[in-house]
Amino acid sequence: MAQAARYCGDHRFDIVDTAIPEPKADEVRLRVAHCGVCGTDMHIFHGKMDARVAPPQIIGHEMSAVVDALGSEVTGWSLGDGATVRPLRSCGSCAACDAGHSHVCQNLSFIGIDEAGAFQEYWCVPAALCHRLPTGMDLAHGALIEPVAVACHDVRRARIAPGETAAVLGAGPIGLLVAMVARDSGATVRLFEIDAGRRAMAKELGFETCDPSSADPLENVQAWTNGAGCNVVFECTAAAPCAELMTKLVGVRGRVCVVGIFPNAVPVDLFQVFWKEVEIIGARVYEAEDFERAIALAASGSLPLDRLITGRRPLAEIQQAFEQAQSGIKTLVDIS
Amino acid sequence: MAQAARYCGDHRFDIVDTAIPEPKADEVRLRVAHCGVCGTDMHIFHGKMDARVAPPQIIGHEMSAVVDALGSEVTGWSLGDGATVRPLRSCGSCAACDAGHSHVCQNLSFIGIDEAGAFQEYWCVPAALCHRLPTGMDLAHGALIEPVAVACHDVRRARIAPGETAAVLGAGPIGLLVAMVARDSGATVRLFEIDAGRRAMAKELGFETCDPSSADPLENVQAWTNGAGCNVVFECTAAAPCAELMTKLVGVRGRVCVVGIFPNAVPVDLFQVFWKEVEIIGARVYEAEDFERAIALAASGSLPLDRLITGRRPLAEIQQAFEQAQSGIKTLVDIS
Repeated sequence: MAQAARYCGDHRFDIVDTAIPEPKADEVRLRVAHCGVCGTDMHIFHGKMDARVAPPQIIGHEMSAVVDALGSEVTGWSLGDGATVRPLRSCGSCAACDAGHSHVCQNLSFIGIDEAGAFQEYWCVPAALCHRLPTGMDLAHGALIEPVAVACHDVRRARIAPGETAAVLGAGPIGLLVAMVARDSGATVRLFEIDAGRRAMAKELGFETCDPSSADPLENVQAWTNGAGCNVVFECTAAAPCAELMTKLVGVRGRVCVVGIFPNAVPVDLFQVFWKEVEIIGARVYEAEDFERAIALAASGSLPLDRLITGRRPLAEIQQAFEQAQSGIKTLVDIS
Repeated sequence: MAQAARYCGDHRFDIVDTAIPEPKADEVRLRVAHCGVCGTDMHIFHGKMDARVAPPQIIGHEMSAVVDALGSEVTGWSLGDGATVRPLRSCGSCAACDAGHSHVCQNLSFIGIDEAGAFQEYWCVPAALCHRLPTGMDLAHGALIEPVAVACHDVRRARIAPGETAAVLGAGPIGLLVAMVARDSGATVRLFEIDAGRRAMAKELGFETCDPSSADPLENVQAWTNGAGCNVVFECTAAAPCAELMTKLVGVRGRVCVVGIFPNAVPVDLFQVFWKEVEIIGARVYEAEDFERAIALAASGSLPLDRLITGRRPLAEIQQAFEQAQSGIKTLVDIS
């Protein structure tokens, strides 16, 4: 028998015993090592996605694991390999898949939301969705590959080039990771964040910051860029004032990458889009190459991943992990 | 002596006698043949740009001409050559010019708005801004090259590929030209327009149309594209409902080209941008290559330019030309 945590609705998890599952022909069975608490998991915890997740359900998708068993048709993997999962099951036949954009498949099943996730000891997933973690990588870092891959995708979509300036709106977990990856890509990065604790973390990570509640962010950017505006803005807040601000901060031919999830239409200054030939670029999840870059970045040691892990709890304390996750950057649940 | 029409403020033009100007060393003197009435000229006529144009001023920039005299340093031009002018004088030293985007120069002077334009018999302009019209081209068509170049720029910015679907919101002069150039680029194009007269013109030009006031445009696009959404939307209305609609109409990785000039921030559905990885792309004026394509298109005869010319008046009747321009597609002032 094995243990699994289930989201039961209304801010509650329970821990149940489950049978150790057998992998299908194309699957591997993973022994999950760590699984992080994502912002989406917090939305689920707060009951905002009950219609989609159908509690009780095992959730979780920011994970690392060791390969524990192989399906009969699986090749290229060995027992004991470190792995993380790109949790996107696409249909293979919609217009998006046909066009080669299966990560935004029109019938996408997000593993850990739409089907059982990684807050459990043993987890079977398609081998094709597994990415190998290098030997010796701290598996706690391995659980951060998925959010780092989000940041890699965002930076790639924004076409960051060395020497460019990038303003990141919001210094939450994704904003910080986007800032780190953009810096690794050669950009000069500044974070805009109203929360003092998050600004302090950003400073500790070596970034310039601006508090938009006490200093005008447009003036800040104009002074920083000698009036040119910055090359790229990453919108990581989903806050309406940032939507109205984002196109003003970039210069001629600037790019605005929309990372935040805006539930409602919000005012955007389209005159700026026209006048400066700005591009507003949507970025959602990741593709295989983003996982590969994220793993290479984590393995290189150039990202200060340890500092992002601000809380850890064993699986038995997943309830407390979720209750306290909001106060830190990244909380990991240690599973095995 | 020569004649010139001056915008004098408050819906008024006068006609004055001017000396025939001498070209500077890098200029040509043009004998203007025709000059069209642009939407921007109409804004000026309605007094909305008095702070910028400083009446009395000679305006006009959609023009064709014959080269009449050459400055001392001008090479490559002969007297009698047909020409049109790309009316953008850039500073050459701002961040936009430095980056190779002089058409959106931060200190741009738009000739015909910020300095004297083409509603006059003789006009001196830098030879570097002149584009040659092929021998035998109807100079009335030559006066449409500038708005066709706008459309070429919009279509290029939207990266239209053969076989793609494009929805054009608004069937005014620019919307119709964008539709024509997109169709010439291999796209299947549909125009969305509430005005019956403009829809009739679009149909006459061979386009499918939809009246968004009587049929849901989203349902129309879904039916048209088998649920995939279209590849490109051209927003050519600057109307708030279209800003809210535009990101809904495109499919996964769709592009929305913002052509309309929105004076205020308007609600945009950024969730669609995120979810489908949409790009919203600003497009303003044109570059030299857009003029060259516009001239080639006009010379090929593949654009039904004659049908777009819905009014003509001699220079002496410029007042009436402006008073009646709103009712048609394109009004030309015949100058010489």
